[in-house]
Amino acid sequence: MPVVGVIGGGQLARMMIPPAVALGIELRVLAEAPDSSARLAATTVGDYRDAPTVLAFARGCDAITFDHEHVPQEVLRALVDAGAAVRPGPDALLYAQDKLAMRARLAELGVPMPDWARVSSVEELESFLADHGGRAVVKTPRGGYDGKGVRVVEDAHGADDWLESGPVLVEELVSFRRELAQLVARRPSGEVRPWPVVETVQQGGVCAEVFAPAPQTTEAIERAAAEIATTVANGLGVTGVLAVELFETTGGRVLVNELAMRPHNSGHFSIEGSVTSQFEQHLRAVLDWPLGDPELRAPVTVMINVFGALPDHQIVAALAHQPSVKVHAYGKGPRAGRKAGHVTALSDDLDDAVYRARAAAAHFEFSAPD
Amino acid sequence: MPVVGVIGGGQLARMMIPPAVALGIELRVLAEAPDSSARLAATTVGDYRDAPTVLAFARGCDAITFDHEHVPQEVLRALVDAGAAVRPGPDALLYAQDKLAMRARLAELGVPMPDWARVSSVEELESFLADHGGRAVVKTPRGGYDGKGVRVVEDAHGADDWLESGPVLVEELVSFRRELAQLVARRPSGEVRPWPVVETVQQGGVCAEVFAPAPQTTEAIERAAAEIATTVANGLGVTGVLAVELFETTGGRVLVNELAMRPHNSGHFSIEGSVTSQFEQHLRAVLDWPLGDPELRAPVTVMINVFGALPDHQIVAALAHQPSVKVHAYGKGPRAGRKAGHVTALSDDLDDAVYRARAAAAHFEFSAPD
Repeated sequence: MPVVGVIGGGQLARMMIPPAVALGIELRVLAEAPDSSARLAATTVGDYRDAPTVLAFARGCDAITFDHEHVPQEVLRALVDAGAAVRPGPDALLYAQDKLAMRARLAELGVPMPDWARVSSVEELESFLADHGGRAVVKTPRGGYDGKGVRVVEDAHGADDWLESGPVLVEELVSFRRELAQLVARRPSGEVRPWPVVETVQQGGVCAEVFAPAPQTTEAIERAAAEIATTVANGLGVTGVLAVELFETTGGRVLVNELAMRPHNSGHFSIEGSVTSQFEQHLRAVLDWPLGDPELRAPVTVMINVFGALPDHQIVAALAHQPSVKVHAYGKGPRAGRKAGHVTALSDDLDDAVYRARAAAAHFEFSAPD
Repeated sequence: MPVVGVIGGGQLARMMIPPAVALGIELRVLAEAPDSSARLAATTVGDYRDAPTVLAFARGCDAITFDHEHVPQEVLRALVDAGAAVRPGPDALLYAQDKLAMRARLAELGVPMPDWARVSSVEELESFLADHGGRAVVKTPRGGYDGKGVRVVEDAHGADDWLESGPVLVEELVSFRRELAQLVARRPSGEVRPWPVVETVQQGGVCAEVFAPAPQTTEAIERAAAEIATTVANGLGVTGVLAVELFETTGGRVLVNELAMRPHNSGHFSIEGSVTSQFEQHLRAVLDWPLGDPELRAPVTVMINVFGALPDHQIVAALAHQPSVKVHAYGKGPRAGRKAGHVTALSDDLDDAVYRARAAAAHFEFSAPD
């Protein structure tokens, strides 16, 4: 029986449990705390930044993968040196950890992106702003997620606090029609399989709703999105799931916004919505097993995040009123604004799926992020 | 977070893990052995016939349910006396444990069945044979499954060994066109939801293939099957999933063959094939939560059992050649003839689903029971 070790005990690790159970894969999780979302599969509770802890955890695993991208490079390299199959490997993960490195590498690959620059001083930021209509997005190269570490500035002093710690990434403020996400999976032997491109709706920098496939999408956009993600997966040597967040510009172009090298919120629709979910595909990919069919199971799938908490009585109410909507609860304690679960509706009709998913999500009190 | 305790650590308990993870239900399993199929969720290893073991296991569970029907009545009654929500309860489970009691109760309910009799002597068996063309099926009232405890006799002395231990059930040998299975779920507050009736193909008394929905089925048969199962579920006070195995006679009638009060092999198709799988529905039902939509997700789903073992290299071969077939491995050690997993194919077309499911199953060496 193959053994996959997952570093991190969040909901992404949790949602790997069902396909591992189905495929007869033993899943082991290195969790941060005993009450982590993926506690059912936790075999170790410890610090993912501590090399001896991680090395001990990895022993006996056929592949090591991740619930998040925060494992330090030196720990990743110690794993590789110890002979572990780290997937994705440190060379690829670097580009998910460092946005400046990511932009520089994507530029080499010729992938379409917003204008960007590495900025180390107020003068450099001022110059970028002058060239881009006086407004820009500044991002810390490391540690940002869900809208954190991202700021729109209109003043050359708008990032002074971040510049104290080193260079930042500055990007043009893209005039976009909507946001898309393109997921692909790649296995070490090279096979790459894309899912259909999806539309993501963000609220306060956090993914709120996903429509799969992205409604009213031209073939040119579909093709561009799949090509970009395939180029990135191959170019960066990603193994497992790669999520590429994209802007569809008002001018009809597709530009890379962010990358994630793991199952991603924009792919949760695939649990019910695809023949092979992102969690199953990720396990298959990191084991270098043949990838499954990512085809959609219904004309439309709508996924809506639930924030804060999913108390039992609200789950019961949602199930009672929407018997065909699937409810996912991540087993976390309540905390305002935190992703606590999601709901998914499949349909032949977009309006119907949106209606039912929103009706189910409405049973949860904290269903919008703070 | 609701807690469901499952007595028995086989593949049925194992397949409850994914929907428990999705719905945020804590699943606890009382397993027979440390290497049981459902070991990931095992919180106790012990003997399900030992009341103190079972009582200790049940503490803190919001509902107790089962992977099998072998828990003795006195243990079930001790659980009820201790205040546990036992679902299904001992009064219902009796009819899944004792085939003579089942036949007598179904007769009271007016459910169509083969001719049957309780037989305590060679003379009584001789008389039944004389009335039914000289052949009949004899069954031990208790402990039979997967073809065990069932025998076709043509001689009044053909059941002498069993008659030594007490009365047996004798049934007419039904001339059937095919076998069907009708699954329903019932929650304590009374709601009953049937899945579409399916066709089951048995080999050597063991379920080998399932076609969902049963192909070329008249509305009269569909309605009769659903009505029978609903009548049985209500009449016996079943909570959770009830599987009713049926004969469709050459004369176009539907007769009850066997009952199971738990998720059942004939319902494995529903994991991918239904909006709500039998495992999710069972958990919802035993918690008295609202039942989900059992509607089919595709025009045809075909499930094929795999026996003996699913070695990794055979799983890889099956996945490589059939990227849209779902493979389920039960995490059991190899043993010839034992159910070790199953494969499922969905399609718009029966022939296509059968072809792909059989092609995937053919990668497993021991794919027929002994």
